[in-house]
Amino acid sequence: MFNFGVDYYPEQWPEERWTKDAELMAQAGFNVVRLAEFAWSRLEPEKGRFDFEWLDRAIALLAGYGMHIVLGTPTASPPPWLMAEHPEIFRVRSDGTRVTYGHRRGYCPNNLVYRDYSRAIVRKMAEHYSGNPAVVGWQIDNELGDRCYCPRCALAFHDWLRTRFGTLAVINDRWGTVFWSHIYTDWTQIPVPLTIGGPHNPGLALDYHRFCSDSYVDFMQIQNAILRQFCPDHFITHNFMGFVYDQINQFDLSRSLDFVSWDNYPQMQWNMKDAADPVKASLGHDTMRGLKRSPFWVIEQQAGPSGWEIVSPAPRPGQLRLWAYQAIAHGADGILFFRWRTAQAGVEQYWHGLLDHDGRPGRRYEEIRRMGGEIQIIGERLVGTKLKPQVAILLSYDSRFAFQIQANNPSFRYETEFLKLYRALQELKISVDIVSPEANLQDYKLVFAPTLHVLDGQAADNLSAYVSNGGVLVVTPRSGVKDEANRIVGCPLPGLLAELCGMEVSEYDSFPEGKTNSVRFTIPDLEGTSSPKVDIWADLLHPTCATVVAIYEHDYYAGSPAITLNHYGTGYALYMGVFGGQDLLLPVVRWLLQKAEIPLSFQGPTGVEILKRESDGRILIFILNHTGDGQAVDLPGVYWDLLHTSLIESPIHIGPYDVSILEQQG
Amino acid sequence: MFNFGVDYYPEQWPEERWTKDAELMAQAGFNVVRLAEFAWSRLEPEKGRFDFEWLDRAIALLAGYGMHIVLGTPTASPPPWLMAEHPEIFRVRSDGTRVTYGHRRGYCPNNLVYRDYSRAIVRKMAEHYSGNPAVVGWQIDNELGDRCYCPRCALAFHDWLRTRFGTLAVINDRWGTVFWSHIYTDWTQIPVPLTIGGPHNPGLALDYHRFCSDSYVDFMQIQNAILRQFCPDHFITHNFMGFVYDQINQFDLSRSLDFVSWDNYPQMQWNMKDAADPVKASLGHDTMRGLKRSPFWVIEQQAGPSGWEIVSPAPRPGQLRLWAYQAIAHGADGILFFRWRTAQAGVEQYWHGLLDHDGRPGRRYEEIRRMGGEIQIIGERLVGTKLKPQVAILLSYDSRFAFQIQANNPSFRYETEFLKLYRALQELKISVDIVSPEANLQDYKLVFAPTLHVLDGQAADNLSAYVSNGGVLVVTPRSGVKDEANRIVGCPLPGLLAELCGMEVSEYDSFPEGKTNSVRFTIPDLEGTSSPKVDIWADLLHPTCATVVAIYEHDYYAGSPAITLNHYGTGYALYMGVFGGQDLLLPVVRWLLQKAEIPLSFQGPTGVEILKRESDGRILIFILNHTGDGQAVDLPGVYWDLLHTSLIESPIHIGPYDVSILEQQG
Amino acid sequence: MFNFGVDYYPEQWPEERWTKDAELMAQAGFNVVRLAEFAWSRLEPEKGRFDFEWLDRAIALLAGYGMHIVLGTPTASPPPWLMAEHPEIFRVRSDGTRVTYGHRRGYCPNNLVYRDYSRAIVRKMAEHYSGNPAVVGWQIDNELGDRCYCPRCALAFHDWLRTRFGTLAVINDRWGTVFWSHIYTDWTQIPVPLTIGGPHNPGLALDYHRFCSDSYVDFMQIQNAILRQFCPDHFITHNFMGFVYDQINQFDLSRSLDFVSWDNYPQMQWNMKDAADPVKASLGHDTMRGLKRSPFWVIEQQAGPSGWEIVSPAPRPGQLRLWAYQAIAHGADGILFFRWRTAQAGVEQYWHGLLDHDGRPGRRYEEIRRMGGEIQIIGERLVGTKLKPQVAILLSYDSRFAFQIQANNPSFRYETEFLKLYRALQELKISVDIVSPEANLQDYKLVFAPTLHVLDGQAADNLSAYVSNGGVLVVTPRSGVKDEANRIVGCPLPGLLAELCGMEVSEYDSFPEGKTNSVRFTIPDLEGTSSPKVDIWADLLHPTCATVVAIYEHDYYAGSPAITLNHYGTGYALYMGVFGGQDLLLPVVRWLLQKAEIPLSFQGPTGVEILKRESDGRILIFILNHTGDGQAVDLPGVYWDLLHTSLIESPIHIGPYDVSILEQQG
Repeated sequence: MFNFGVDYYPEQWPEERWTKDAELMAQAGFNVVRLAEFAWSRLEPEKGRFDFEWLDRAIALLAGYGMHIVLGTPTASPPPWLMAEHPEIFRVRSDGTRVTYGHRRGYCPNNLVYRDYSRAIVRKMAEHYSGNPAVVGWQIDNELGDRCYCPRCALAFHDWLRTRFGTLAVINDRWGTVFWSHIYTDWTQIPVPLTIGGPHNPGLALDYHRFCSDSYVDFMQIQNAILRQFCPDHFITHNFMGFVYDQINQFDLSRSLDFVSWDNYPQMQWNMKDAADPVKASLGHDTMRGLKRSPFWVIEQQAGPSGWEIVSPAPRPGQLRLWAYQAIAHGADGILFFRWRTAQAGVEQYWHGLLDHDGRPGRRYEEIRRMGGEIQIIGERLVGTKLKPQVAILLSYDSRFAFQIQANNPSFRYETEFLKLYRALQELKISVDIVSPEANLQDYKLVFAPTLHVLDGQAADNLSAYVSNGGVLVVTPRSGVKDEANRIVGCPLPGLLAELCGMEVSEYDSFPEGKTNSVRFTIPDLEGTSSPKVDIWADLLHPTCATVVAIYEHDYYAGSPAITLNHYGTGYALYMGVFGGQDLLLPVVRWLLQKAEIPLSFQGPTGVEILKRESDGRILIFILNHTGDGQAVDLPGVYWDLLHTSLIESPIHIGPYDVSILEQQG
Repeated sequence: MFNFGVDYYPEQWPEERWTKDAELMAQAGFNVVRLAEFAWSRLEPEKGRFDFEWLDRAIALLAGYGMHIVLGTPTASPPPWLMAEHPEIFRVRSDGTRVTYGHRRGYCPNNLVYRDYSRAIVRKMAEHYSGNPAVVGWQIDNELGDRCYCPRCALAFHDWLRTRFGTLAVINDRWGTVFWSHIYTDWTQIPVPLTIGGPHNPGLALDYHRFCSDSYVDFMQIQNAILRQFCPDHFITHNFMGFVYDQINQFDLSRSLDFVSWDNYPQMQWNMKDAADPVKASLGHDTMRGLKRSPFWVIEQQAGPSGWEIVSPAPRPGQLRLWAYQAIAHGADGILFFRWRTAQAGVEQYWHGLLDHDGRPGRRYEEIRRMGGEIQIIGERLVGTKLKPQVAILLSYDSRFAFQIQANNPSFRYETEFLKLYRALQELKISVDIVSPEANLQDYKLVFAPTLHVLDGQAADNLSAYVSNGGVLVVTPRSGVKDEANRIVGCPLPGLLAELCGMEVSEYDSFPEGKTNSVRFTIPDLEGTSSPKVDIWADLLHPTCATVVAIYEHDYYAGSPAITLNHYGTGYALYMGVFGGQDLLLPVVRWLLQKAEIPLSFQGPTGVEILKRESDGRILIFILNHTGDGQAVDLPGVYWDLLHTSLIESPIHIGPYDVSILEQQG
Repeated sequence: MFNFGVDYYPEQWPEERWTKDAELMAQAGFNVVRLAEFAWSRLEPEKGRFDFEWLDRAIALLAGYGMHIVLGTPTASPPPWLMAEHPEIFRVRSDGTRVTYGHRRGYCPNNLVYRDYSRAIVRKMAEHYSGNPAVVGWQIDNELGDRCYCPRCALAFHDWLRTRFGTLAVINDRWGTVFWSHIYTDWTQIPVPLTIGGPHNPGLALDYHRFCSDSYVDFMQIQNAILRQFCPDHFITHNFMGFVYDQINQFDLSRSLDFVSWDNYPQMQWNMKDAADPVKASLGHDTMRGLKRSPFWVIEQQAGPSGWEIVSPAPRPGQLRLWAYQAIAHGADGILFFRWRTAQAGVEQYWHGLLDHDGRPGRRYEEIRRMGGEIQIIGERLVGTKLKPQVAILLSYDSRFAFQIQANNPSFRYETEFLKLYRALQELKISVDIVSPEANLQDYKLVFAPTLHVLDGQAADNLSAYVSNGGVLVVTPRSGVKDEANRIVGCPLPGLLAELCGMEVSEYDSFPEGKTNSVRFTIPDLEGTSSPKVDIWADLLHPTCATVVAIYEHDYYAGSPAITLNHYGTGYALYMGVFGGQDLLLPVVRWLLQKAEIPLSFQGPTGVEILKRESDGRILIFILNHTGDGQAVDLPGVYWDLLHTSLIESPIHIGPYDVSILEQQG
């Protein structure tokens, strides 16, 4: 059974409406409903008094319509009675102001009182629902993120440091506190890095970011342990936020879960300036699949225009269904739409569900009901199939945190350069895994390590071993600059990667906004490529044993190497000393794919995704048309068109915002 | 007698200068002077010790020159001794920081200590001046506005809620607090909506805005009651801020006053980017006249360049006089210039008066002296004449407050769209009343209800009755969306107006910045109009019994109705599902004026205003040239030119920044 | 001996490296090293326990390589143990938030506890090193600046006011507190001007800025007195920040020092948008030389890319040496590069020293080593030579502070208009002194008084006497507007300068952004000059006895005088009622130079500086090529080229970013 469903808040609607809602859900082909997220006020109306009756009734009704139930633990938004009694629970922001009541996610994850209340409500829920046959799993809290800077966190930070590093002498050396006389002589002197005094020691700041990440991981782990104890047969997940959330190490957060879920709103990062970018949604999916290198759920899938104070553009006819299929194409084994009916009250009044405020089925409901019918036909073909990429990109939260502290260049953003690389691979219809620098890389023929700024010995060894054994590795500027303490290494850059790359950075030039240089390729394979522009940063390379691939064309370092390739063991390490756009990345990536012996299996226009899910003997091809125009794609061979239940051959025509799912024949 | 005068601060100048000032005032034709505003430090130099001697002397001197005196109560700026003793009086801003000493308007209107001190000073003044024959009236405080978020306001907010809604159950239901577990179980849990935690529940936020408004109304009412008791023969007014101030419901604030006054600085909203916009000043006047639907005063009329830290451009020769006549043309029965002489010290050093810092009469004084001479000639002709518009625009503070909380679209501003509509009517030289949605509309043939977002049953009934009885009503997007609790209605939009408009909004599309669509008119009356662009928002309309007036030309909803007209009772309701510029509004408004049988009496170039004040048997035409070039206007008939004391016929020539006041003959 | 050296932090590196560093320094030709700045944590590791052993060893080692030692007092960054015990020491920012630990410069200069601890460490250092023969001088603290708004400062401000003005009556009159009822009846009522309540009384605000400046001057003076007592043979300096720092009156701060030092980072004001501007560096040098009208040191000279969170562009080959010679050309008698080796840890990880993080000599070290060799050859020729400008620009901290409070026009910045004037003089290769309005001006033939906004009688008399005795003075808009209390004068503008300038400002017009006017010259000397644009502000001038030099061409004041010249005594006073660019300034300045009989001695392309240092019988010409292209300059006569040790005649060719130093022959 493919998990297909919706997020529902029965407590927000009159009970007499529930049956109508359940009927409409069943008609849409839904088989899973998430409940109880944000319902703490109704589950524990006053301290220690619990009320599950209304939820029992809702579950019973939905189960009667064949729905499986996922329960959310409600700790993302504590009730007023709790926060009014314990205002010390409120998070402190980086500017030193303490959050006040009225929104959500206002708690400090290290607060002991809050942890106690959280334990109590989760335990009561787990006890109550462990035996309910309709309940199949749990989602812990909601979209964990944020950083807290409260006095309780200061103490917890000191403990965290003491546990990891033992003595203040080690800390002082690690952070280099002799600079500006910051030598700590008592644990209590160590501050949290509030923004109101100026930039902080980069070592302290990076460790604080790590501590904050660990604090939320711990907070989740408390709930996880209780649920494991009482509900050993239920799955446990959490709703992540794709590639976007950057304050928690998501690899750590996912470790103890059964699978990763995430909340996919293609228009959410949308800034009222441009349309939803399907490549960003793809990156979200691949990031989520990479956390545990296994299938995931989209537990909140966009169901209409989103917005709090403002309303996003209406998704075009077909887009909601397309986006849901995009998730499946990238490896989702469950899709739940958020939310069922648009809230009439509360902050999310403009976060539209499948039904409008008036509760009547309309264009959006009908589109998803159509998809529900399709899923009932094709669902069994999907189950068990997976993506098997040969290319990986390394995602480093340490580096990401470090760039939050020191951007290196005002035009540089870790996420932007990461996305450019990913976009080049998308353009070439190459599937990608997003994995951690410590991951086992033996499944991949080509690995990108974009701006791997903070690098420890373990990751460096992992990369060397990978290349040594025949892999192709790509390193970009500002990699290997920092050790794990966020100190700059005392040897030539790229530090621990210098030997592997067979070169050193002799000098670098950080560009003013708008300034560019360009490079010229100097190897036969890339001859004839016009001179692509580069910007933001230039590393001037001194090859020790590497071959020069490209040189600079302008400025005092015209002629200096900009890109080098090193044959190391049985593999290759490419050092790119530059950042650039698709005119730089596409030829380089195409050449590297060739070098790594990865075929360009699919070709198609920009805006059309082509992906493959496969299992033993079954190959499914997804063709997703994100454009508003009809498109045609050439695919060799004969296919069974699952949605149109017919055999099909090239050219394959796909309407605007439409999708084809083809099963390869023979 | 037409009230013509100046705002004067004798306490800021050497007493030996007073006589010279009074002479110059008399030579300028002034007959009213406002005094004592901001003089608390001099009136009560220490707690409980009052000193009126200096003010008595100033009044006596000015009365000797024929001046009537208006006294300001000084509560807008309490003296240091009071605030130093009671720092809890200081207002708390929405970010949670408490204001500190050094500026003005720093007090919380709900603070009980401050209310006591305010009562004392006002009572002393009232007692002392009730019998002074020179004193004719009072201005309470100054430019009331702001919102306070202090703990005292939290308590007062709880009282306000308890009084209106009785129980927490009602509140929880009203605000839908079940969303995100915000169910309040004790009054003290209800927060004030500080900005430091994220967006608040829209119901709570709107009620807090209303509470803040009521708090200032109450604060004024305290002073009003004392003045009424001691000075029953004096008038009472307050200086409002035109259309601009948006934190107090000005209809409420004006209710107990004898008449509305306001402070008219055409360059004040000026952003150093463009010149003063005369249409904005007109909107200010019409808004002020509409509060009580009666004549008003401009109690502070711009007298020179304005500015605190920066200096505005110099008003061009003629503009100060022109702006003052513009006020009269829009219904002002009193004009006082702010201020007499420019302050040498204090925050308003660059807020120029009629005299410069050096006290010598210059260009600005001479210009107003000339006007004073004119007023002495024409003043009696003005008294008793009024504007009688046939068109009204509804101004809803509930909607305005609601859009402050949720803008719906980043490019949308209530004020901007309101102004566009008003500008179209100005362009057609149509006089307009600005009235509340609950106002009696029977005097109007055409009523605009722009973005009437928050709508209760009473206002909806008012509009239905108006149309039913033959009126023409115009409704624009996002109207009828919210009930009075700021919940989104559970029925099709435009909610309570859907039946009246004979249509429903089947879907909407919120535009990214810069995106446009266009509409095509589909009725014979508007045939030949080119396709005007629309932006920000598109309602897709489903007529139930309305006629389609225009359809969209682009996007997936090309061909869908964008504007509809419904014949309802003996009137018409037009629903505009779009926002647009003058190319959309001008043809629609022109057509509606025809439909409402309102003649286009006046025609003239853009930038030239033509208005009519009339009384039994007397019709005065004001022609105001806001351009820097000479202009000509055609008016049928023969007129007496009041300023040039001659008969005049078309074409009527008016110099740059000049004005003609014509009395219709026969 | 010319002082040539480096800033070194031995405590940040392993002691086994020190010898290698000292060797490399010696090879670079260095003879001075600054130490111990920011070393408080190592000098007083816990309260009252002092440790100088490590520093003694470092000094001994360096002295062995011939280095003279300058010691920094470490009070710019107190150790954690001190701040944790006394959090009341932390500065309060203007928004009312108190700084927290983690950066530097976090202390309040008025805090009594901090003053005690500062006294103790400085006294211990002074006692310990007074007899060390290697130590030659002291640098007090580091880059003093900032303003504090803490309660202790409030008390100190009251004392400061009481001392200067005696009674509250004087204060109230001075500030005009009758405006808005701010009459203070007790000293404790006087607030510090926090930004959270709105703009403050300009008189109070200016006095607070002066008080803040005096507070840092006092703080420095405490250390100065101790050092003078214990180390009477050592020099004392402080590292200023050129023209840029604007919160302390640098004339006051320099008064008790032996000489001024400063920290010259041509890329520091750099905004990632354009390259380092050599004219700004020149202005910094001339400002520093003007503080005491004597030679200065650059005690921190840029040694590589700078940056905290971001990295600046790499200085081009030759630029580091060029910038160092530029300092010498402008009168520096000492150059120390900041810093030796780039820090691997701490906030300044990206503030590059001569060596990179890896400690290997590279391009930058080699460039400065080359210069070190040159200095050894030419150093003795430099010693004793000085600049002797005939032109001065008056720098008024009172005016600068006043414009911080009220900018007058949103496009106006004191610094920008100052720089435009300075740039015109640079373009004409005219050397300039930057001096205070009270300075003795008899050495100058031409003096500019740009926007001398706050003007007291003493300075006005100084200027009158200067002109009276034959000087040429230039006054620009907004001069003479304020008295020394920041009140606007009660007489026609330019107030105390009106008689001297022979004119009055009859009216002024402050321009919206983007608006311009233009002027036409009306005197024969400037005939044929095209009409230069003017912007920001226009004074309309009424000559009483002055001659009209230029008139406006547009707007209602077309034809009105814009620039006038007054013959006063035996000199001239030019009043410029306008601001403009180089097309206005260059012809006016060229004409004035002629009038003042100052020859245009040097001519050369833009971007090439030509300066003269001279002593009895010796004239050195510096030609600095700030462009990336080779340039040629014509100089009459024969010269000895000091760097190439050869005779040379015109045309003199200079490579990109290169310098020539020529000694005039005969």
